Parts: sequence; structure tokens; C-alpha cells
Amino acid sequence: MTIDFKQDILAPVATDFAAMDQFINEGITSKVALVMAVSKHVVEAGGKRMRPIMCLLAAKACGATDMEPYRKLAAIIEMLHTATLVHDDVVDESGLRRGRPTANATWNNQTAVLVGDFLISRAFDLLVDLDNMVLLKDFSTGTCEIAEGEVLQLQAQHQPETTEQTYLDIIHGKTSRLFELATEGAAILAGKPEYREPLRLFAGHFGNAFQIIDDILDYTSDAETLGKNIGDDLMEGKPTLPLISALRNTTGDDHEIIRKSIATGGTSDLTRVIEIVHSSGALEYCSQRATEETQAAIRALEHLPDSIYRQALFNLAQLALHRIQ
Amino acid sequence: MTIDFKQDILAPVATDFAAMDQFINEGITSKVALVMAVSKHVVEAGGKRMRPIMCLLAAKACGATDMEPYRKLAAIIEMLHTATLVHDDVVDESGLRRGRPTANATWNNQTAVLVGDFLISRAFDLLVDLDNMVLLKDFSTGTCEIAEGEVLQLQAQHQPETTEQTYLDIIHGKTSRLFELATEGAAILAGKPEYREPLRLFAGHFGNAFQIIDDILDYTSDAETLGKNIGDDLMEGKPTLPLISALRNTTGDDHEIIRKSIATGGTSDLTRVIEIVHSSGALEYCSQRATEETQAAIRALEHLPDSIYRQALFNLAQLALHRIQ
Repeated sequence: MTIDFKQDILAPVATDFAAMDQFINEGITSKVALVMAVSKHVVEAGGKRMRPIMCLLAAKACGATDMEPYRKLAAIIEMLHTATLVHDDVVDESGLRRGRPTANATWNNQTAVLVGDFLISRAFDLLVDLDNMVLLKDFSTGTCEIAEGEVLQLQAQHQPETTEQTYLDIIHGKTSRLFELATEGAAILAGKPEYREPLRLFAGHFGNAFQIIDDILDYTSDAETLGKNIGDDLMEGKPTLPLISALRNTTGDDHEIIRKSIATGGTSDLTRVIEIVHSSGALEYCSQRATEETQAAIRALEHLPDSIYRQALFNLAQLALHRIQ
Repeated sequence: MTIDFKQDILAPVATDFAAMDQFINEGITSKVALVMAVSKHVVEAGGKRMRPIMCLLAAKACGATDMEPYRKLAAIIEMLHTATLVHDDVVDESGLRRGRPTANATWNNQTAVLVGDFLISRAFDLLVDLDNMVLLKDFSTGTCEIAEGEVLQLQAQHQPETTEQTYLDIIHGKTSRLFELATEGAAILAGKPEYREPLRLFAGHFGNAFQIIDDILDYTSDAETLGKNIGDDLMEGKPTLPLISALRNTTGDDHEIIRKSIATGGTSDLTRVIEIVHSSGALEYCSQRATEETQAAIRALEHLPDSIYRQALFNLAQLALHRIQ
């Protein structure tokens, strides 16, 4: 069966999605023209808005009926996501994101740093309005962990000794944690603490799978269609799972080439590294890990009552995995 | 009478100050070594810790006895301040702050941006633990306004048309708002809403005076002793009050030199600009405005009961003004 994003994932929350999108636009208000211009630019550059969709689906899966607070929560999640992207683009010195010029490229690093700060603060400001201390604590702790994951990634840059566990810590912080906030936040707000853990597990494993797949695509040939350039991670000396696995599976020259590529960064050995990643069985290992994470995500969903919303979350996990199948 | 910082301002809260400092160190915890190293570096580079001292004095002036929560609040204030400094140094491409290498210079911009994000999140995380929704709302709104003030400053860069009102909006956001949070936050936490407004007015006017004085010192000869370089603002084309006032008081060549210096930045005309700022009466005007703001700050204190803590806040306002006397 082919999963269609709009029909099989988005449709059950399409009305709430539109309202959420509206709320993002209304939520970003400032008397400062430059804050408005940059915020609009980066928010409009958004992708599929997977995180807010997961938040809305999680709320419905918890039995929520009045969707107003969840639309706000979903908008807050997307604003936090956007803020991290804006700062990531400064950190990575990126000029393009999803084919559009980044904030740092369109304006400058200064503006991007400060508007990112504004978006983080504004997201917290809107979150406070939801008037739920448990939710606030989850988000304030979660955003710390997200920042820590990003710093851990910097710390691991150019380090060929990086272990798979450190890699998992990095992707949990930089990717999975926000997915977790999106879904467990909905359970907290719905007053359904019994669904908090299953939804957190679902989102955490989904996020891990999602990021592993992303890291696979950085070494496989059809990645360009996804707006990523092959070799971006290698360029920056990022020890992602394909390289960690390739190091484990190789000796001699092949091993040394991968080591050196991580240590120095750059893409002078890109063709050779791609060959080794393919021939060493690293990609198979990564695919297997992504599949396992997806299966763990799906298993966690079993603790929720059956509904079209739970099914949509299931579909989302399946669709993500299809990117490498 | 000469005011002594330690004796006339710090002494009444010396014990709480030491405990607060301890709490900053304990509050910054992370499993990520790089987060710890950078956070410690920037927190230790702190100055007089004026904001937390004001917070502690305000709490005592409100009649607080159990100081534990205010020590935490004061530490949170200092962490937020540190986070904004870390990002400011990225924005300004500064290599030194108070004679020590900045985080961006010691590590790099990437690390500074992300550790700044961590410190903001951690400050909110500790704030949530104080379990006060009114306080949280004040801080979440306040941090938005701080970011907006910073962006407004960027927007005004190289704009000779910048009005005094825009300048006041900038300094309120980038400087005074955090002072306000420090003191009105204490009133909120103390359950003394009647002292919130006077303390906010005190801190807001004090902050304005403080920043105007800082901007004067950028054009006066003994500024180097304060760790600032003369002409830093001119270098970046920042239309601060000395220049706004000089533009208002001049015509012809003098006027054009100031206009051009703001528009282009750089310090090629620094000597001439300093002469004009002195000869045009701009410095007198700025000093007068700083004095007026200080007087307004002091007047606001009259709405608090007399105490050694209120007196210490009074002394602080006087001492700040002495920097230009």
C-alpha cells in the first residue's frame, strides 16, 4: 500500500492544521518591522509541518474534542522548530534551506541569531498562556536537552572515535526530543498522563528513525531530490551512523580514509567514502536500525486506543521509512 | 559623600549574594562537557552582578525574609543576562569582554550561539521551578521585548534618521527590561503587587540612565578604563543619544560629518565626531537626560517603605550617575 501524506496522515486533522497555521501567523506579532519580516520569512519556509501534525494527531488520539489549546500547542512546537532551524543555519553557515535563502543569507548572522532568540521567547510566552505547569516544565527541560544535543554534535565534529551511543544521544537531543514534546505535550494538556509515556516513546523512536534515514540519505544518490546535498555531513566532519558503522566494518586503507574524512572534513574523498559506506554494509546496518526504531515507535502506539488518529501516526512512521525503501 | 559599592550597596545582601553565586554554579549542570566549559567561562566572566544584587535588594525592600527563592530568581536573572551577552558578542563579533576572551573568540560562533540557547532554556527551566505563573508570564513577555530591542538596534544601525524615541525603545528593550524583571520579579514572588509598579519604574529609569551613561562614555576620554573602547558605537554606525543630540544641534559640515559617520560606520572621522559631540552641547544634553532618568528612578523608590535595602537601591542609582560626574 502506498501511503499518501495528505490523505492518510493530514486529513484527520486538516481543519485543525489550517487553524494552527493561522495561529502561527497571528502568534508572531512585533512592533519591530525587522522581527516581523524575518519571522515571516522563516516560518513560511516551513516544510511539511510534521511536528505540529503529530501534536494534533496525538491530541485527537488522546480523545481531545475542544482543539483550540492543541492548535496553539502545535503552533508553539513549530515556532520552536523554526527557531532552532534559524540558529542551525547560522551554525552551519547555510545559504539555502529547502531551496530558499536562509535568514542568515538574506539578512545576516546577527539578525538570524536575535530573531531566533525572539522566536524561542515568543514560543515560551504563548506556552505560558496555556497555563499548565507540567507542560511548562516538560518544555523548559526539553529545550535544554535540545540545545545540549546540538552542542554535543559540535563537540563530536571531527571526532572519529564517536560511539554509536554518543550518536544516539546527539540525535535524541537535536531531533527526537522536539517530536517527543509535540506528542507528550498533547497528552499532558489532555489530562491523560497514562498516554504520555507511549506517545513519548512513539515520538522518540520515530525521531531516531527519521534522523538515521536523513543521515543515510546524505550518502545515497537520490538525496538531491530532497533538498539535501550529498556529502553535506562529510563536508563538516560529522560522525553520523553511516560512518560510525563503516569504521566498525572496515580495516586498513578503507578504515583510514573514513577516519581521515571525519577528522579533517571536506569532500575530497567523497566518492571513495560513498563507495566504502556502500560496500562495507554500513547502509544495511543503518537501514536495519531505522527499521527497528520504526517498529519500536509503532509498538508504543499499541498502548493507545484504536482510532483514525492513531492510524495516521502509524502511517507517518511507515511513510518516513519509505524514504529509504 | 562617596558611595562605596561593597559597603553601601552590596553589604545588606552580602550573604544572599554569595548563596546566589553558588546557585548559578549549581544551576548550570549538563552532561555535555562543552556546555559546561563554555557556560562556566561566560558566567565567571561576569561583572559586578548588578542585576541579581538589585533583585535581592528589591526582595528585602518588599519585606522578604526567607530568601531562598529570591537567590534563585537572582541567579536566573544573571543567567539570562549572560545568555544575552554571549549572543551579543556573536552579533558584535567581539573578541574581548571585560578584558577576557569572549566565547565566540575562545571557541567559535557556533558554540556561542548554541550555549547561549542552552542558558536561556536553563534559565526558564529554573524559573518554572519557582512555580509562579505571574512571574513566568512577566519573564516570557520580557524576554521577547529584550530580543525585540536588540533587533530594533540592528534595524537602526546606519540610520541617521533614528529618533530619540526609537533610541529610548532600543535601550528599554536591550538594557532596562532585564533590570525591570529583576526588581518587579522580586515583588511578584514576594506577593506584594503594590510594590511591583514602583520597582519596575525604578529599574526602568535606572536602566535608561545606565545605558545613556554607557553611550556617553563611548565618546569621552576616560572610557578606556571601563573596558570599553572609545568609538566602538561609531565604528558600528550605532545612532546613540550623543549622535542623535549632536545631529539636532548642528547644521552644515558638522551635521554632515555625523550623518555620514552613522550611515557608513567606521572611525575615520572619530576625532572630528568627538569634537562635535563635545562642542555641540550633545554631552550636556545626554548628562541632563541621565540625571533626569536617575531622579525619576529615585522618585519611584518613595513608594516603598524606608529600609536599608531601599537606601542601597538609592545608592546604586547615585553611583551609576557618578560615572559621568
